[in-house]
Amino acid sequence: MLEFLYPLRTYLIVAGDLEKPNPMTADWVVPVSFKPALLGVAIGHGRYTKKLIDEQKDFVVAVPTIELLKDVWTAGTVSGSNKNKKELMSVTFIPSKKVKAPSIKECSANIECKVVKSVDTGDHTFYVGEIVNVTESDAFVDGKADIENYKFIMHASFGARFTTTSSEIIKP
Amino acid sequence: MLEFLYPLRTYLIVAGDLEKPNPMTADWVVPVSFKPALLGVAIGHGRYTKKLIDEQKDFVVAVPTIELLKDVWTAGTVSGSNKNKKELMSVTFIPSKKVKAPSIKECSANIECKVVKSVDTGDHTFYVGEIVNVTESDAFVDGKADIENYKFIMHASFGARFTTTSSEIIKP
Repeated sequence: MLEFLYPLRTYLIVAGDLEKPNPMTADWVVPVSFKPALLGVAIGHGRYTKKLIDEQKDFVVAVPTIELLKDVWTAGTVSGSNKNKKELMSVTFIPSKKVKAPSIKECSANIECKVVKSVDTGDHTFYVGEIVNVTESDAFVDGKADIENYKFIMHASFGARFTTTSSEIIKP
Repeated sequence: MLEFLYPLRTYLIVAGDLEKPNPMTADWVVPVSFKPALLGVAIGHGRYTKKLIDEQKDFVVAVPTIELLKDVWTAGTVSGSNKNKKELMSVTFIPSKKVKAPSIKECSANIECKVVKSVDTGDHTFYVGEIVNVTESDAFVDGKADIENYKFIMHASFGARFTTTSSEIIKP
């Protein structure tokens, strides 16, 4: 019944380190506090990313635009437990500023998080991360997404069906 | 630093009862488990909606399309603690099937939830709700959002700046 919340934005959760980064595609990402700045990510119990986050206690939420859709699809359909996703993807992993998990050069923002809480939610674990640093590209102007010029990835529904953000600004 | 997760989908969280429904605009809504089907909603500590959810332990996530933007804006900028939002909005509140909190007739889906967990996350409380019923309109076909024909509301950034979903279907 979760399908009625879709379409949802799609992000990459990067865990692991620069030597063996493990990016996972995730739609289930949400802000949960202004002060401190916290976000939450729900990760399935069987995921390799869960193991990495449990060990290292940090992760990066990387924000992809539509040009990266093929890589996003790879990151969402291959498990890092038996394959090195870095070799299958075309993106560049670069050091983050304040966490061990790397950032992705081609993403329009990299949100560095340290885990402050983990909550069991059914078949997922909901990790609450404190945002300790953000690096962004010019897809953001004064902290506002430049939707007129950049197209962010959205998952239209479960499966291989994506869409993007409209470029219209609409006033209420 | 949460602004880098935007644009985000915008929903209405309906609390209270049919006599005095209280809809609140919320971008901070996320699926957190397939089985059981759970979603989470982060609500600010000072919100009237928080008080209502704490008392009644249920709420509805109503999914608005762009035609409802004026009502969504009203629901997000007026507090139900001193005003009856029902009188300020043009939507129709109707009984839900399995929870006391009402649904909204004009919304494209009404996701009925019972609170199963609440977690303190900084200046918000993150309510985890089990989805106990959904009613949907023809904006969903076989559980898939009909994005070619319906435009769902997205908050482009904080403040009075909205956008919508693109109508393109993009394959990876």
